Amino acid sequence: MTGAVPGPVLVVGAGLLGTSIGLALSAQGTEVRLRDTQAEHVRTATGLGAGRPDETGVDPRLVVVAVPPAIVGDQVAALLAEFPSAVVTDVGSVKTGPWEHVAASTDPAARARYVGSHPMAGSERSGPLAASAALFEGRPWAVTAHPEAASESVAVVRALVDACGAVAVTMTPAEHDLAVARTSHLPHLLAVLVAGRLVDADPGQLVLSGQGLRDVTRIAASDPGLWRQIVGANAGSIDSVLRELRTDLDRMLEAIGAGDLDTVTGLLQRGVRGTQAIPGKHGEPDAPTYPVYVSVPDHPGELARLFADAGEIGVNVEDVHIDHDPGRPVGLVQLVVADEHAVALVEGLRERGWTARG
Amino acid sequence: MTGAVPGPVLVVGAGLLGTSIGLALSAQGTEVRLRDTQAEHVRTATGLGAGRPDETGVDPRLVVVAVPPAIVGDQVAALLAEFPSAVVTDVGSVKTGPWEHVAASTDPAARARYVGSHPMAGSERSGPLAASAALFEGRPWAVTAHPEAASESVAVVRALVDACGAVAVTMTPAEHDLAVARTSHLPHLLAVLVAGRLVDADPGQLVLSGQGLRDVTRIAASDPGLWRQIVGANAGSIDSVLRELRTDLDRMLEAIGAGDLDTVTGLLQRGVRGTQAIPGKHGEPDAPTYPVYVSVPDHPGELARLFADAGEIGVNVEDVHIDHDPGRPVGLVQLVVADEHAVALVEGLRERGWTARG
Repeated sequence: MTGAVPGPVLVVGAGLLGTSIGLALSAQGTEVRLRDTQAEHVRTATGLGAGRPDETGVDPRLVVVAVPPAIVGDQVAALLAEFPSAVVTDVGSVKTGPWEHVAASTDPAARARYVGSHPMAGSERSGPLAASAALFEGRPWAVTAHPEAASESVAVVRALVDACGAVAVTMTPAEHDLAVARTSHLPHLLAVLVAGRLVDADPGQLVLSGQGLRDVTRIAASDPGLWRQIVGANAGSIDSVLRELRTDLDRMLEAIGAGDLDTVTGLLQRGVRGTQAIPGKHGEPDAPTYPVYVSVPDHPGELARLFADAGEIGVNVEDVHIDHDPGRPVGLVQLVVADEHAVALVEGLRERGWTARG
Repeated sequence: MTGAVPGPVLVVGAGLLGTSIGLALSAQGTEVRLRDTQAEHVRTATGLGAGRPDETGVDPRLVVVAVPPAIVGDQVAALLAEFPSAVVTDVGSVKTGPWEHVAASTDPAARARYVGSHPMAGSERSGPLAASAALFEGRPWAVTAHPEAASESVAVVRALVDACGAVAVTMTPAEHDLAVARTSHLPHLLAVLVAGRLVDADPGQLVLSGQGLRDVTRIAASDPGLWRQIVGANAGSIDSVLRELRTDLDRMLEAIGAGDLDTVTGLLQRGVRGTQAIPGKHGEPDAPTYPVYVSVPDHPGELARLFADAGEIGVNVEDVHIDHDPGRPVGLVQLVVADEHAVALVEGLRERGWTARG
C-alpha cells in the first residue's frame, strides 16, 4: 500500500471510468474536480457525488484522462502543458500510441510527469450513470511507466490504483499492448468471427446451440464503436497475435484435410495447456474443482433456496453457471465446488429434495 | 409427447450417456439391459440402478448404441443383424458417417429399423459414475432419421427422447453434422487456438487476463482424445465452416493492415448480429437483461444470503457469473436480471448492506 492520493484531482472525461474514479476518490475524502465536453455528463457525475465541476484557479496535483482511445495522446499533452506541476495519467486501453504522441510533443520535464495506466474493468454499459466506486474492486490495473517517468509520478499513480481498490501491475507500454492484444483483443476478435458465422445459418441449425457456443461468443455483443477505436489504436500488436493464430488455423486445416489426426491432437493438447496458463481466482493456480448440476424451477426464490441449502451443507461455491434450457421453464444450474466437496454437496442436495448430479 | 418406451431396451456402452439413459428409463419402469466390453462398467451401472446385465435370450425392442464415435457405424450394423426385430439408435455426436456405413452394409429391411440421434448433453467427466437420470433434462436431442427409416422406428426413438426429459429436434444426418460443426465444433476449435496462443506467453502478460478470455477458452480444457475422434468423424463439415472463418479472418487481417477501420467495424457489427441469432433461454428470443454487480466475501453462506435477499426483493435472476479476483478473497458476482428489475435490485441490495452497482 502507498499513501493517500494528493488532491485536488482533476478527472477529464466523466464517462463510466472517469465518474467511477471520482466516486472512489470522493468516498475517501480526496477533492475531485470533473471536466467533460458534454456538460450533461458533468451534471450527472457531480449529482452522483463523484466530485465538483472544474473551475479556473483550481490547481490539480493529479490529472486523470478518461477520454475515448482516439484522443488520449492529444489530451495528455495538452493537460501536461495546462498544469505544469501536476502528474498526469490516462486510463485508455492502449498505451504505446499515447506515449509516443506525448514523447514527440512535450519536453523532458513535462513527460517525466506522465505515467499511463489501464484498469481492467468495464461494463456492458457506458456513461456516468453506469459508474460505481466499486468498479475497480480487486481488478488488475496496469501501470505503464515509460523510462523517462519520474518515480514520484509513478508513486502518485500507484496511490490512485490503491485508492480505487485495484491491484497495480507494472509493465512497459509495449508489454501492455502486446499483453492485451493476446489476453483481450485476440479472444474478442475471434469471438466476433465465430459469432459472425451464425448470421446466415439456418435457424434450425442454431436450435442445437449449447452453453459452449454462448460462452465463446458472449463478448462479441460489445459495442463495435469502442472496439473500432481499440483495433485502430493497437493495430500492430493485434496484427501480430492474429497472424500467429492464423498460422495455427492453417496447420489445423491442413491436418484435417490430410486426415492427420495426430497433428490435430497436438493442437488440442496445446489448447488444454493454454487454459491451465491463465491465473486462477485470487491470482493463485486453480485448485481442482468439480461441477455439480442441479435442476431449478425458473422463478424467484428457488435459487435462494438452493444457495441456502448449499450453505447449510457447508460447501463454498466457487463458480455458478445457469444453463439455458430450450424447452421448459426449468434452469440447469452448475455449481462449481472444490473436488473434495462435490460428493457431500450432491448427497446433501438430494436429501433436501433437489435433482442433483455430479 | 409420444407413448412409453417399449422394453426391454438394450444399452450398448455403459459410459456416461448409456448409463444415464439406463437410469432415466429404469426410473420409469422400463426394463433395461446393459452391455459393455468393460465388465467393470456394467457392474458400476447396474449398481447405480441403470438396469440389469445383458444375457442370451433377451430380445430387446430398442437397442441404444452409446459407444465411442469411431466405432458407432460398425456396432449399429452388427446389432441390426443380431436383433432382427429391434429398432436401433445411436447417440454419437456425428451422424453422416455411421449412416453411410449402415447404408452400405445392411439390407433395406434392416436399415428401416435404424434412426440415429444425438443428445446435446455431456459433462466434463466421463464413465458410468458421472451418470444421472437428469443428464438430458430439457436439453435438445437431435433425431436424424434417414429417408429409408420406418416411421415406427422414428416414433420409438422419439419416445426415448421424451422418456429422458429431452426435447426432440428433427433433422437429416447431413443437416445435423453441419449444425454441430457450426454451433459446437467451430467454437471449440477456435477456443483451442486462442488458448494455444497463451502457452508461450510471458506469465506477466497473463496477469491482465479477464473474464472474457476465461469465457472464450473454457471449453478448450476438454478431453483431446474425444475431440480427436469428433474431428475425424466430422472432418468434411468442420473443414467447410473453418474455411469460412478463415476467409473472414483474412478480411480482418487485411483491413487492419490497411487501416481500413470501416471493414473492421462491419465485421464487429456482424458479430453482434450473430450473438442475437442464438436462441434464448427456453427457446425464445432473449428479453433485454441488465447485469448487476455485487461484491461478495468468498466464504460459505454469503452467496446464500445474497440470493435470499434477491428473492426477498422479488427479482428473478436469469443468469449468474462469479468473476475471478486476482488480489483478494472477495468475489464479484454478476446477477443478470430483466431490464425493468435492475434498479429495484440494486436499491434493494444496497438497503440490505451489499455493495452493488448496475
